[in-house]
Amino acid sequence: MRPGDAPDQDTVENGPSRRSLLRGGALVGAGVVGGGVIGSFVGRAVAAPPSAKGSREPFYGLHQTGITTDTQRNTVLAAFDLKSDRVADLAALLRDWTKLAAELTTGSSNTVPMYSSNDAADRNAYADATQPSTTDDSLEAYLLGPQRLTLTVGFGRSLFVDPDGQDRMGLKAKLPPALAVLPHFPGDQLTAADSEGDLYLQACADDPQVAFHAIRSIARIAPDVAALRWTQLGFTPTNDAGTPRNLMGFKDGTVNSNVHPPADLDATVWAGSEGPAWMRGGSYLVYRRIRMALEHWDRLAPSSQEQVIGRHKLSGAPLGGHGEFSALDLSAKTSAGDPVIPQTAHVRLASPQANNGAVIMRRAFAYNNGTTPFTERWPPWRQSLEYDAGLLFLAYQKDPRTAFVPINARLAENDAMNEFITHTASAVFAVPPGATQSGDWIGRTLLT
Amino acid sequence: MRPGDAPDQDTVENGPSRRSLLRGGALVGAGVVGGGVIGSFVGRAVAAPPSAKGSREPFYGLHQTGITTDTQRNTVLAAFDLKSDRVADLAALLRDWTKLAAELTTGSSNTVPMYSSNDAADRNAYADATQPSTTDDSLEAYLLGPQRLTLTVGFGRSLFVDPDGQDRMGLKAKLPPALAVLPHFPGDQLTAADSEGDLYLQACADDPQVAFHAIRSIARIAPDVAALRWTQLGFTPTNDAGTPRNLMGFKDGTVNSNVHPPADLDATVWAGSEGPAWMRGGSYLVYRRIRMALEHWDRLAPSSQEQVIGRHKLSGAPLGGHGEFSALDLSAKTSAGDPVIPQTAHVRLASPQANNGAVIMRRAFAYNNGTTPFTERWPPWRQSLEYDAGLLFLAYQKDPRTAFVPINARLAENDAMNEFITHTASAVFAVPPGATQSGDWIGRTLLT
Repeated sequence: MRPGDAPDQDTVENGPSRRSLLRGGALVGAGVVGGGVIGSFVGRAVAAPPSAKGSREPFYGLHQTGITTDTQRNTVLAAFDLKSDRVADLAALLRDWTKLAAELTTGSSNTVPMYSSNDAADRNAYADATQPSTTDDSLEAYLLGPQRLTLTVGFGRSLFVDPDGQDRMGLKAKLPPALAVLPHFPGDQLTAADSEGDLYLQACADDPQVAFHAIRSIARIAPDVAALRWTQLGFTPTNDAGTPRNLMGFKDGTVNSNVHPPADLDATVWAGSEGPAWMRGGSYLVYRRIRMALEHWDRLAPSSQEQVIGRHKLSGAPLGGHGEFSALDLSAKTSAGDPVIPQTAHVRLASPQANNGAVIMRRAFAYNNGTTPFTERWPPWRQSLEYDAGLLFLAYQKDPRTAFVPINARLAENDAMNEFITHTASAVFAVPPGATQSGDWIGRTLLT
Repeated sequence: MRPGDAPDQDTVENGPSRRSLLRGGALVGAGVVGGGVIGSFVGRAVAAPPSAKGSREPFYGLHQTGITTDTQRNTVLAAFDLKSDRVADLAALLRDWTKLAAELTTGSSNTVPMYSSNDAADRNAYADATQPSTTDDSLEAYLLGPQRLTLTVGFGRSLFVDPDGQDRMGLKAKLPPALAVLPHFPGDQLTAADSEGDLYLQACADDPQVAFHAIRSIARIAPDVAALRWTQLGFTPTNDAGTPRNLMGFKDGTVNSNVHPPADLDATVWAGSEGPAWMRGGSYLVYRRIRMALEHWDRLAPSSQEQVIGRHKLSGAPLGGHGEFSALDLSAKTSAGDPVIPQTAHVRLASPQANNGAVIMRRAFAYNNGTTPFTERWPPWRQSLEYDAGLLFLAYQKDPRTAFVPINARLAENDAMNEFITHTASAVFAVPPGATQSGDWIGRTLLT
């Protein structure tokens, strides 16, 4: 079955999902309807109130959302380890994930009344290990509205093959060559516990509690089947001041970004006929958590920072250019004969011109994990408490082998910015095509 | 000198601050004015643009802001270790902190043009350890506006006395008795590296990048004098849906909160004549980072959660009450003779009625530090990867010895919620009165 085909109803919806069965028990009895009035209520079908906050991103479509979608204010990224090697378990999980994800993006499940009573009969049920792991909506996002929530699902290479390359669960033949193992890049200091994973779930929303609520809700469906491996929070600044600035203070997203996306997404972002049919309309995500040595960066004069980046800090114009969107003039020389954009400038080394036209589409968030003791690899060498903050680099592309890998190889060797950044986490995921309509599910093209 | 008096100009502004001296050098030369036009520019006095985002909180006043101020969307808390034992260094630091804090809250320093040129002469200055540690604004909050930024400064007990109780830097005689050492409470699992500190700086704003920019900017003034000890980020959900909900899904702030503050702040929050004169108009902050075992909480039926809290989840009404703001009826009995609000319910044990009228004013944020391996102290006992998320409890009060300490002692012993929460960080700070006008500085009442 190819994306775009109508799903087989027998396959897709052969009875109520496990989640709705689990949830059913909790809904017998009383409920609550707004404003403190305790009343009798059965069921879940309550529409979002007319004053619902934030707008709603469509969930269904050929492509998953959260890729080209305008960047939201907040993200929670999550990776999961699959605790089962049965394809049927994975398929059931993904059906439930998709169904709940669609509900969450409408904001409607945020308005579901809860079972509520003074009956203390189940007071001790907590200690009963046989109790279902889901009760009902945890309510912390109640009435907050859709907040442009998007949920994006991906598959790690470890879903297809074991570390020794053996077939894990009968999916090896479907492993896309583009779901590659990244090489070790110079300077990488990757933390395994914050990297990779069998499954990926990316929540983006204009409210931090809505984004986390989505991850938490989906993670609750079947923690015995998919257990959290890592989560990472990110944010963007208020986004009505033009291209947002990263924590280095520079505009980030002028090119190669969903803020100003490549003209031809089919040529750069979406998987096509070059790979397995089940991935058509999908994309490949390379995630890198990039720590910035902000204390060191802040000691560098802004004029020198501009030499590192290759752009002016305030305007975002390339050195030698006249505005943010001026083309890079990589051949321009100063009167002394030096390149106007230095050989080691970040924008030069990352440019399509310097990479045989290779293009990625970044979806960037800042992150700030507080302060941690670090040992610096550049002078002044020291061990001290420093910010663990920087950039969540989420690059979507048609094929990492011809996009992220060659670009980052070049950057890792020569980028002047390396003095101020360290890649501390990494993952690659195949992000399959979207669920095309209600009843369809993400992963159907792989698993049926 | 008492708060409210005009500051002595000789004392307050005897020459340019160290920071402005340091900064002077960076401003010789060219600058940039909007839109990519590179021009000649000297100075800092650029007004916020007419389209400045968010509104502005006043900085100067008898009380510091960020205490009773309506809770903003984001916070970054920071504690510092003072690296000097000279009162003169501390006074100079606090003068500079105050001056920059006032600037930051106007949003105007976010619009300061940067020195910007293609001159590579200072390219290697980074390796020069004698270079000033501040250059100029790091620009990541450029044009984002004031965003209701507040900055609140506090003093830890360790500023006054060494761990062995000896005078640290001549301030012991001014140690307020209310700046108490907290007892160990049952269940405390405090991480020393995330607790206490000589100095406290609380940034709250409606934008995460603006809040962090403020901490980062102030921390850059003199890292050799005040070095970061810990930072902690927090957030609140979109705040137009009534009393915000915490990550347990319950409304948090119905009472004892700046959302609905106590009627008589002088009697509950602000320090008065009962303590040292230098603290009049100040307050005492007790900070606790409270992890919630969300995975376990989510397994508890909502009706049982309500027995733990003592309120209805959806409405926020106390059990037996009819609306969020109903008074607690602690004597109400069910027909079976049991208390309607259980003896171990959180709201009963935290109520003024149960604590001889003791009142605190909480300023609550959610926090989410990702996922971490935890060992649970309640069944089902296990070690696993769990959310490190919960509540930043910021309680302001006139005297912790008669407010937080007795209330929390009662909670730590008997609160049913203890099964689902763990206090993992703690600090107490004396938050002095505000700077009353330009030229005045926070800490003047202590140090002059």
